[in-house]
Amino acid sequence: MRQLDKFRVTVPLRVRYAETDPMGVVYHANYLSWFHEARDQLLINLGVDIKTAGHTGYIMPVVEVSCRYHYPAHYRDEILVSAVPEETQVARFIVHYTVHLKRHSRLLAEGTTVNVLTTPEGKLLLRLPEHFQVLGKRLGAESHR
Amino acid sequence: MRQLDKFRVTVPLRVRYAETDPMGVVYHANYLSWFHEARDQLLINLGVDIKTAGHTGYIMPVVEVSCRYHYPAHYRDEILVSAVPEETQVARFIVHYTVHLKRHSRLLAEGTTVNVLTTPEGKLLLRLPEHFQVLGKRLGAESHR
Amino acid sequence: MRQLDKFRVTVPLRVRYAETDPMGVVYHANYLSWFHEARDQLLINLGVDIKTAGHTGYIMPVVEVSCRYHYPAHYRDEILVSAVPEETQVARFIVHYTVHLKRHSRLLAEGTTVNVLTTPEGKLLLRLPEHFQVLGKRLGAESHR
Amino acid sequence: MRQLDKFRVTVPLRVRYAETDPMGVVYHANYLSWFHEARDQLLINLGVDIKTAGHTGYIMPVVEVSCRYHYPAHYRDEILVSAVPEETQVARFIVHYTVHLKRHSRLLAEGTTVNVLTTPEGKLLLRLPEHFQVLGKRLGAESHR
Repeated sequence: MRQLDKFRVTVPLRVRYAETDPMGVVYHANYLSWFHEARDQLLINLGVDIKTAGHTGYIMPVVEVSCRYHYPAHYRDEILVSAVPEETQVARFIVHYTVHLKRHSRLLAEGTTVNVLTTPEGKLLLRLPEHFQVLGKRLGAESHR
Repeated sequence: MRQLDKFRVTVPLRVRYAETDPMGVVYHANYLSWFHEARDQLLINLGVDIKTAGHTGYIMPVVEVSCRYHYPAHYRDEILVSAVPEETQVARFIVHYTVHLKRHSRLLAEGTTVNVLTTPEGKLLLRLPEHFQVLGKRLGAESHR
Repeated sequence: MRQLDKFRVTVPLRVRYAETDPMGVVYHANYLSWFHEARDQLLINLGVDIKTAGHTGYIMPVVEVSCRYHYPAHYRDEILVSAVPEETQVARFIVHYTVHLKRHSRLLAEGTTVNVLTTPEGKLLLRLPEHFQVLGKRLGAESHR
Repeated sequence: MRQLDKFRVTVPLRVRYAETDPMGVVYHANYLSWFHEARDQLLINLGVDIKTAGHTGYIMPVVEVSCRYHYPAHYRDEILVSAVPEETQVARFIVHYTVHLKRHSRLLAEGTTVNVLTTPEGKLLLRLPEHFQVLGKRLGAESHR
């Protein structure tokens, strides 16, 4: 479904030494933790209190991730991680990411994650619990009733 | 293209504390480093000397990764990471992974990576350099000429 | 106080790619997570059920760590991490570590950690709660009364 | 020897989700990578070109680290990592760190690292090579001749 660009957030990060690998570039798995920072900022902006979300008893695991890498990031590079949510009718939270080098705006990588909501035992929730209903309101589930 | 199951390798790992997150389960980005361990074992089995590969001046970056997560892994779980290469005609190395819990053989995750070969400056190689030609021989590029 | 060598445990590990840094050697912070694996194996051997320890409401944070690095570890090296507890009269758990290369038994690093027990709010416990009393019994607090 | 407070640097960081552990706090090993960020900023301020240091053929490994943890850091906390070098007459680079919570200035941890200079083969250098002589000049080795 379509991306809701009005909710785009961009998080600035600086590459840390511990994120680089023997090739001298950022190890590819670390982009997923960068996506995480942008996704949580997006959740906050959308009105989800992520600090207290754990107290609801529900969890929001990543169930799918994909990433394409275009150009490597190096130690101390300043980067910009953007996240845009996808419109959704169901209890899935789909986010698209781009990672740019701040200098020159070079595109380094782009990716997607899908999160769902489950009980602590891992049972999938098909309807958004109260704490997360703001997501449904803003990402389109409500607007199409 | 088809998966070459005869080259399947399986690497056993035990989940480390440092790999788990505040939900008490393995942080999703860590599966990518598990894939890496299985992929390098696969390269070794296929005849690529990964210890000296760096001396060739060529590098083999991951350019695409995807993963679907079915069930969480927990601290100290014994897991099995399997890797199977895909047949290929070009200088791309495509590998498919499954992650199972050793106990019960439960499927935890499955994923795919694509690696290419580049010069240190990032210029894509369209033909396999000598050090890596064994890959072409075994994964089909040569056999279909 | 003296080290209780009879409780020594040794955990074998293999260096993963994601643990190495741009110098091509294991990033020094990763030795602390190796210590963790050996320490938890030690706790298990001493009779502490670490799987259910979290349910007691008490936590056992590391409050001090030190490490001296003698020789670097490389990707795919097989290493042995040994942990030996120190005799103790108080609610502190002091462990000494050595890290050896399996091949040649070369000493790579040695270190020490100190853990205490606290409430979830971080209040220090001066007496061991029931779940952890086995530590006091085995590490000397009881035997010197 | 005495700390050279005039060279103190402070690096701001925000705690990332991937740095936290099942206790919901920053995993203790991650403080070492925070120290690294402050140490490299200190080297830059002292005049060492760390981008080209690798080209000299010399490396600067951490040979000792210690850390005491006073209070845990949590996800999204804004923290300040300060580094102060110690005066030195020899080819050792000793740095002391403090980690504070930005809000309330609460002290979270303090630590020390020792780095040396070696050839790529690990042979210890007793005199600073040219690229690093600025360290000797500024940290006292020259001024006491």
